[in-house]
Amino acid sequence: MAIKLYELCGTEAERVFSPFCWRSRMALALKGLEFESVPWRFTETDRLAFAQHDKVPVLVDGDRAVTESWDIAQYLDAAYAQTVPLLRGNPAPYVFVAAWNDTVLQAGMVRLIVSDIPPLLDAKDRAYFFESREKRFGTTLAEVTADREARLPAFRASLQPLRHALRGRDFLGGDAPDYADCIVFGSFMWARSVSALPMLAGDDALHGWRERMLDLAGGVARRAPHFGG
Amino acid sequence: MAIKLYELCGTEAERVFSPFCWRSRMALALKGLEFESVPWRFTETDRLAFAQHDKVPVLVDGDRAVTESWDIAQYLDAAYAQTVPLLRGNPAPYVFVAAWNDTVLQAGMVRLIVSDIPPLLDAKDRAYFFESREKRFGTTLAEVTADREARLPAFRASLQPLRHALRGRDFLGGDAPDYADCIVFGSFMWARSVSALPMLAGDDALHGWRERMLDLAGGVARRAPHFGG
Repeated sequence: MAIKLYELCGTEAERVFSPFCWRSRMALALKGLEFESVPWRFTETDRLAFAQHDKVPVLVDGDRAVTESWDIAQYLDAAYAQTVPLLRGNPAPYVFVAAWNDTVLQAGMVRLIVSDIPPLLDAKDRAYFFESREKRFGTTLAEVTADREARLPAFRASLQPLRHALRGRDFLGGDAPDYADCIVFGSFMWARSVSALPMLAGDDALHGWRERMLDLAGGVARRAPHFGG
Repeated sequence: MAIKLYELCGTEAERVFSPFCWRSRMALALKGLEFESVPWRFTETDRLAFAQHDKVPVLVDGDRAVTESWDIAQYLDAAYAQTVPLLRGNPAPYVFVAAWNDTVLQAGMVRLIVSDIPPLLDAKDRAYFFESREKRFGTTLAEVTADREARLPAFRASLQPLRHALRGRDFLGGDAPDYADCIVFGSFMWARSVSALPMLAGDDALHGWRERMLDLAGGVARRAPHFGG
């Protein structure tokens, strides 16, 4: 029985745009595991009741349901031990990569692209999204991204640890990608899928790494619907 | 033959204050390896000629000299494989921890404490330090740290990935410390050794982790000469 991955999308089922879903998608790609994408929308919480969860990604493998991208990565390493390891036998140092990604990269990115998401959603999801996100930010989404062009340089500067870590290395995993690459690239795929705003300046040293990630596993990420570069 | 570690100090041999030396010192402590500290000052490059190097730490183990803290960690894991592993069999994800530490934590810290270092040095080292650091910063060291109290909140905010990574965990290494802890704690020991400026606010969640690190291996870090908290 094929692995199923419940993934976030809007009106267009192929345009998956949760950074956490992209982590799991890239994890499956790195491990060379086939899977069936199950489109899921923000307001379809009842469809995840079987997993006692209300968010995606949810991975279903036979009669096993695994929630949360981090637990999915650990599950895949354990269940498919003969494939490429994601966490290389030791999850601990990847926790810091995720912590930086969530609190710096992703926290910066959401304030650049969040207003690009509503047009991708149907009326019901759009209402949910506006309400939940405006509550989170304490203002309208248009306000959140109003000065985004002016904030791009600061966002790009915040990626310096990434540039530093990739000096002389093809991937965060070293010669080959691992789950650290999935975490960070997942955020970039989120932006690429929903927004035309260029996260990287034209001459950013990170382009090489991002292109390599786009090429992985036969270009699974490159082929996905996208707006941006 | 005991391991020797050449470490940076000033007039006081016991006050070791290079963040990179502290990484190696903590690495040796974690592994339970005895070593002899060899005090070294900025201008004593001739004393490192044997290692074809001009910076500390330099580790000497029998007839083997190892330079650079990162290479020392890998050497110790390879040469003392029966002791606690530092890089847990896979150095790749620790590179990102070091990249963040160097470009964010340490880059922020140096602009808070660099002017506290000259009083610890003798005349010759002090002249070298002023010249090299003023060239690096393009201004006087007094200027670099002039508004440091005002910049403390921004520095402390930049530690957010660390707080996030340590939620529900005792160490960056998880239940037990590993080289990720050595990297980040090394920077804190640098500040503690040279400056009374409090890097953390009184209620910072990072205190618990720092106290645990100070307690490691019989309190080797806690006993070191220090000014700050």
